[in-house]
Amino acid sequence: MDKIIVANIVDVELNDIYPCEIHISDGYIEEVIPIATTDPNDVDLDYEGILLPGFIDAHTHIESTMLIPSNYAKAVIPHGTTSVISDIHEMANISGLKGINFMIENGKEVPFDFFYAAPSCVPPTNFETSGAIIDSELVNILLKLNDFVSLGEMMNFPAVLAGDEEVLKKIEYAKKLNMPIDGHGPLLTGEKLKKYIDADIYTDHESSLFDEAIEKKKLGMKIMVREGSAVKNFDDLLNKNDRQIFWANEEDAKNLSRDDYNLLLKNPIFDFLVSDDKNPIDILNGHLNLLIKRLIDTDVFPIEAIKMVTLNPSKHYNLDVGVIAAGKKANFVLIDNFDNFNILKTFVGGEIVYEDGNVLFDSEDVEFENTFNVSEKSPEDFDVKIDLKEGKIKALIMKVMDKSLITDKTIKELEVKDHIIQENIDRDILKIAVVNRYGEDTVTNGFVKGFKITDGALASSIAHDCHNIIVVGTNKHDMAKAVNEIIENQGGLAVVSRRNDIKESLELPIAGLMCNDDVSTLALKLKNLQNIVKLLGCEFNSPFMTLSFLSLLVIPSIKISDKGLFDSEEFRFTDIVQEVISEDEENA
Amino acid sequence: MDKIIVANIVDVELNDIYPCEIHISDGYIEEVIPIATTDPNDVDLDYEGILLPGFIDAHTHIESTMLIPSNYAKAVIPHGTTSVISDIHEMANISGLKGINFMIENGKEVPFDFFYAAPSCVPPTNFETSGAIIDSELVNILLKLNDFVSLGEMMNFPAVLAGDEEVLKKIEYAKKLNMPIDGHGPLLTGEKLKKYIDADIYTDHESSLFDEAIEKKKLGMKIMVREGSAVKNFDDLLNKNDRQIFWANEEDAKNLSRDDYNLLLKNPIFDFLVSDDKNPIDILNGHLNLLIKRLIDTDVFPIEAIKMVTLNPSKHYNLDVGVIAAGKKANFVLIDNFDNFNILKTFVGGEIVYEDGNVLFDSEDVEFENTFNVSEKSPEDFDVKIDLKEGKIKALIMKVMDKSLITDKTIKELEVKDHIIQENIDRDILKIAVVNRYGEDTVTNGFVKGFKITDGALASSIAHDCHNIIVVGTNKHDMAKAVNEIIENQGGLAVVSRRNDIKESLELPIAGLMCNDDVSTLALKLKNLQNIVKLLGCEFNSPFMTLSFLSLLVIPSIKISDKGLFDSEEFRFTDIVQEVISEDEENA
Repeated sequence: MDKIIVANIVDVELNDIYPCEIHISDGYIEEVIPIATTDPNDVDLDYEGILLPGFIDAHTHIESTMLIPSNYAKAVIPHGTTSVISDIHEMANISGLKGINFMIENGKEVPFDFFYAAPSCVPPTNFETSGAIIDSELVNILLKLNDFVSLGEMMNFPAVLAGDEEVLKKIEYAKKLNMPIDGHGPLLTGEKLKKYIDADIYTDHESSLFDEAIEKKKLGMKIMVREGSAVKNFDDLLNKNDRQIFWANEEDAKNLSRDDYNLLLKNPIFDFLVSDDKNPIDILNGHLNLLIKRLIDTDVFPIEAIKMVTLNPSKHYNLDVGVIAAGKKANFVLIDNFDNFNILKTFVGGEIVYEDGNVLFDSEDVEFENTFNVSEKSPEDFDVKIDLKEGKIKALIMKVMDKSLITDKTIKELEVKDHIIQENIDRDILKIAVVNRYGEDTVTNGFVKGFKITDGALASSIAHDCHNIIVVGTNKHDMAKAVNEIIENQGGLAVVSRRNDIKESLELPIAGLMCNDDVSTLALKLKNLQNIVKLLGCEFNSPFMTLSFLSLLVIPSIKISDKGLFDSEEFRFTDIVQEVISEDEENA
Repeated sequence: MDKIIVANIVDVELNDIYPCEIHISDGYIEEVIPIATTDPNDVDLDYEGILLPGFIDAHTHIESTMLIPSNYAKAVIPHGTTSVISDIHEMANISGLKGINFMIENGKEVPFDFFYAAPSCVPPTNFETSGAIIDSELVNILLKLNDFVSLGEMMNFPAVLAGDEEVLKKIEYAKKLNMPIDGHGPLLTGEKLKKYIDADIYTDHESSLFDEAIEKKKLGMKIMVREGSAVKNFDDLLNKNDRQIFWANEEDAKNLSRDDYNLLLKNPIFDFLVSDDKNPIDILNGHLNLLIKRLIDTDVFPIEAIKMVTLNPSKHYNLDVGVIAAGKKANFVLIDNFDNFNILKTFVGGEIVYEDGNVLFDSEDVEFENTFNVSEKSPEDFDVKIDLKEGKIKALIMKVMDKSLITDKTIKELEVKDHIIQENIDRDILKIAVVNRYGEDTVTNGFVKGFKITDGALASSIAHDCHNIIVVGTNKHDMAKAVNEIIENQGGLAVVSRRNDIKESLELPIAGLMCNDDVSTLALKLKNLQNIVKLLGCEFNSPFMTLSFLSLLVIPSIKISDKGLFDSEEFRFTDIVQEVISEDEENA
């Protein structure tokens, strides 16, 4: 035995708090011996406060933070997170196994428990170009690695419903190895939802509506409540006072005594609290700790809230972390009390890795090969051409909303001048384009509503999930300039406004997704870019992250890939031009 | 604790034999408690005889037995082998990850410890066509799987010596994970050998000459003495009475006392006893047990001989088997005594899996997709065409020797008739061809000496390591017939003699390498084919296995791939026609 820690622990299995001796050997808990006492104040504690199991983020994509794994660990350890289950499909889409190996190996450099979900959809669909393919046989191999604990979110739900052979094989392989399969079923309901769950897909983190989550829950799914940077579902799923009435059978609820009813209200309905995609600004401010506190503030039992990031993921994914019990890893969080929920210290493998505001380990810079195979773009690449020479058309427009991955369809009139469909800045109808980065040198164009910038363009090499280059702009010149800036930087974010003489970028040379900066530096750089976008007129909370999801074809209802404008409800390509209203006589 | 076994054990760590209690829990040894006694006959043993650790074959390719892994286990368990380290590069070359997954999963169906070496050379060289590629990133992933214990034989030694980037990456990844790297350096010597070893390649199983093995040993390599079906190195490496004189410094040896000198002779010089490639006939007769016995018969200390298949591989590959000690798996072999070395019982995970001549577990039939993408061949595909119409040429001939993978070069005169170079059956110069099976539909032709058949043809879809179809014949008609028989069967061996009205085949529908037969059935079928080949005039010990290695480009000195005749010393393609001796006037 290496050491003994005496502390008040939260026992998430017994729903109790008591003083005990924790015996630790080789980083693991050997024994937990409760200290019998009539007066808890008599116990000579090593640490004042309450010791909880380290928190687990059960669904996230590390790459979305733009931090390399070792710096990610440094960023979340101060907030009490000691483990994540990360579906590293962003890197997998760009660099395949090389990217996966990079993530796993970099993560091993620091005291933090990285678990991985084997990417199930690389590429996500057949309607886009990725840098690599992870087929069913490779999924089978990954699932056998100790680092992997589940088959990652099965985003291509149309393929599951259609019984696609490769997709079913991946599911079959996971089942054979007794691995949980993660779901992704935004707005999926009724028979389709049942069929999806029948494939043994038992978690979902895409519920954005309360009723949606309840329907899934009743069918046996475990619901991950997501609170990311671009998408925030916490309020809609957990902040309802009357939520138990929906959840319990209404009749039963009526028959409950007032006391029992109030007790019921103190239990959270759903199963996990997860981040999914978080930017460095948000991570700097807090992580799962903030969500637990918010839940406690709504009068949920503290231990029940804590279970959502400890016992629940530990049990579902069969992890050796998440519980203070013999045989588990000695990962702890010391808080002052449930009301303030301040993180005082964090332990990994029995060692203190964070205290007094300082992370007690270092990370090192890494390199990664250039993953961009694309030539410089000209403004004309962003022209939306049409046979019609002059006139008006009805165009299909992608309507973007803040804090949601889901887009709306809308049809608007646009002018055509000299065979080119014109954006309309006054009506907030801007141009959007995706530039292939994997050697095909193609550009697809469309129109978008919601960004409200009145000048310039913003672009990103983070463009889910294939990570071609995506750009939104008020004019083709700024769009080309922003895209070329990213190509030159071998990846990153950029905002350009020639009129205001602005060209700012955040370089992400590691696969176009990440850089070596620490979370504070990165947050500053991102804040700078976001402020510029804000000054240009955009009101979105996290404009670059919102932009990055406009190419994610597996989310309703209209998106754009490097191959074309895509109808995510019909799961097929669609056209910008819906109707020609008036033709110039020349073209008649 | 599940059970206690009381027996006389061989302690390979302490070089001792003593009675003890073995405490077993969950298949593993919890404790080994020696029984203090003045009279060993007083101890109440559970089993008469001597209990050894289960044997480990540290270098083999399961596929070469033509048995699926579960049947392989059933075949070797009666001989005391309870573990193998298998480089499954045959399946990997044909079906990549699908093949690897198939092997791993089928092996898990039975109580046997399969360990794997990650295939380092798939394809072995760039001069041949395989069905799959295992690149450095995939090697990195495989090495992280628990099933894998080493980087498999680095056969492409020219690429190691040339500093090929992909090859060095594979080595680098293995070193990073502290995984041993297996060598393959036939006849490698001097500076080249030193450079090869400098890449941290520390085993070799390709030594066919005593001096060759000693040179490698002195440079720090561990020598695996191979006794397979096609290649037998035991006699040359271990059966020398004066071997210690070579091994020890000659001067030192002279100064040794007679007793010390004799003692030295009782220690084996080399490190492992391995099978590499064994056919089912040989496996039916025995396995590593026969080699240990042969070594004991040469007066080597029995425990030293046993270490070569237990302690030595266990330590080198960091295995949880191979020693009767706490923490190791409870795999044992019960023998009667060292002189007879009869295997009485075999234990895996503390359970008896073989006794009284019976294997106590079953295996099930499996299926695998058809891996042949090749059209029917015509006799003319096997014509060796030349510009010359009539005359004589000097042709480069592959000279094949029994019990060796190494071929010789020889130049012989051959006649040309109507633009076709003629075989010469009287002088044992036959035709050899390789037919691409991976969709390219090509045939390469050459000439071969050594088979001595006077009629017919023999063909095989086992053709190392890419496993295209290889055929040797006295005439093009039989060659085409034999090849077409294999294509129709979706793999296997075939022998054809139209003159004798013979067409016999052994179907190997699992990737063209294996079938569902058990070892006895398979041995009978193979024996039948071998007898026919023998009757046709061939004197080789294992003609189909010898045939199968004629396409293994990484062995000297001349081989043939689906892309051409290959000079394995110069590592480049070469030509059949070395010189035109006499030309017909028509062509002058």
